[in-house]
Amino acid sequence: MAKLYNNIAILGLGLIGGSIALDLKKRRLAKRVVGYNRSAPSRRAALKRRACDAVISDPVAAVRDADLVVLATPVRHIPELLRKIAPGLKKGAVVTDVGSTKENIVRRAKKLLPKGVIFVGGHPIAGTEKTGMASALEGLFEGRWWVFTPDSAAGKRAAKRLRRLAKALGAKSLAMSPKEHDEILAAISHLPHMLAYALVHAAMGLQKGKALKLSGSSFRDVTRIAASSAQMWTDIGLDNHRGILRMIDRHEQFLKKLKSLLAKRDAKGLEKFFESAARVRRKL
Amino acid sequence: MAKLYNNIAILGLGLIGGSIALDLKKRRLAKRVVGYNRSAPSRRAALKRRACDAVISDPVAAVRDADLVVLATPVRHIPELLRKIAPGLKKGAVVTDVGSTKENIVRRAKKLLPKGVIFVGGHPIAGTEKTGMASALEGLFEGRWWVFTPDSAAGKRAAKRLRRLAKALGAKSLAMSPKEHDEILAAISHLPHMLAYALVHAAMGLQKGKALKLSGSSFRDVTRIAASSAQMWTDIGLDNHRGILRMIDRHEQFLKKLKSLLAKRDAKGLEKFFESAARVRRKL
Repeated sequence: MAKLYNNIAILGLGLIGGSIALDLKKRRLAKRVVGYNRSAPSRRAALKRRACDAVISDPVAAVRDADLVVLATPVRHIPELLRKIAPGLKKGAVVTDVGSTKENIVRRAKKLLPKGVIFVGGHPIAGTEKTGMASALEGLFEGRWWVFTPDSAAGKRAAKRLRRLAKALGAKSLAMSPKEHDEILAAISHLPHMLAYALVHAAMGLQKGKALKLSGSSFRDVTRIAASSAQMWTDIGLDNHRGILRMIDRHEQFLKKLKSLLAKRDAKGLEKFFESAARVRRKL
Repeated sequence: MAKLYNNIAILGLGLIGGSIALDLKKRRLAKRVVGYNRSAPSRRAALKRRACDAVISDPVAAVRDADLVVLATPVRHIPELLRKIAPGLKKGAVVTDVGSTKENIVRRAKKLLPKGVIFVGGHPIAGTEKTGMASALEGLFEGRWWVFTPDSAAGKRAAKRLRRLAKALGAKSLAMSPKEHDEILAAISHLPHMLAYALVHAAMGLQKGKALKLSGSSFRDVTRIAASSAQMWTDIGLDNHRGILRMIDRHEQFLKKLKSLLAKRDAKGLEKFFESAARVRRKL
């Protein structure tokens, strides 16, 4: 079978980058997979798990022959990394990323990459609260959504092949604008994380810790994601602060409605509020 | 082995009442377990699963010989049920409940029950988003907390035996005041539910449903409890509306802090806010 790409470079061998690399090799989706990571233990782990054909500590060397470059480092390192690899990229190379925000990254990439290189923002909606190559999993993208945000004619052509790659990794894919992506993600991922962090804060000091001690499965489910990487969520918070602020405002409108129903002890109104959400949730 | 109670009546054979009955029989913790439920299919299911020695459609008849009565109906039916069974209770009988709020129920019970009957509020912090005898499980209380809220000398004596019963069902138990219970539960259960319902509302209308379609595991985990019974949560909302309103206010203080950090794009402040919550959550 002809490969979708001959040479793929994965920059950043964490949970997502490592899992992509594992699947690329396992499913023989590229002739050669080269991995870059700053830390030597991650590079060794990637080699040991046969996630890459070669690992390398210099990102410029890693991308030299790449037809496809996947940026999978923490979001905060992406601009610096783009600046570094820009002179080393092949003409016609496609660069994508896996960051949880898109508008800012796409804007930066367009400024930093040379003409003849095509950037297509990407975001596989998958992951756990864990991080690092040690947590990388085969099949992580199976059944998950992978969003691409092409914003030029060349980008759209490149996105077609990327979507075939996503499919080969088991994912369903969609193309949309960076702005639309960031609004949707603010609602379904960034806002839930913000609420989970705020909820842990609200319960932390109460009754000298007795509240947390008694917490049952509902509290644990809702706050599981508050155990995620604070650094990653700081990056997302900075990158999509406008989208997140808009979504917190939207959420507060519904909290306000709920508070008014509670204050009035409006049984019918409360039941309607809860039931309409429950009906939607049960269908997910 | 001597039984903790000879005759136990379970009024309401839903998820919690049914699971208590199942364990009482399976672990031989009472000589006789009598179940009451309004609906005939639930009564038949309880008999079929051998959760009760007898089932009965008249609550007064169900409690006639009971040393212990467990109220496990929806919270809204408890006052009416207390009124009905009051004349039929044995002198010295202990009555407890399994409701998610305590101040209001304890106050109503004291008014409605005759002298010589001892009421001890109870709340096993267990359950799923499912309801009904069909969802009842053996071992549901294993490792869970069961809070009792005795508020008299006789209540405290009765609570000691109830805590032994809870232990026999595999639960850890604690005694505290009804007020303290309601404050803690507002934080660890009622508030998370309110946030989950509000979060589904915030995502529902967005991008013509595309937001919900793309929702990943973080959204699903946080909103799982929004599939719970709207009726039960209306009862809880009405009963503990003051506690819940206080806790929403408390939560909003932290949201306000977060909004200010996002608006200022304060990286250090955001990371500290996230990391302090993450550290606490990882320990749970």
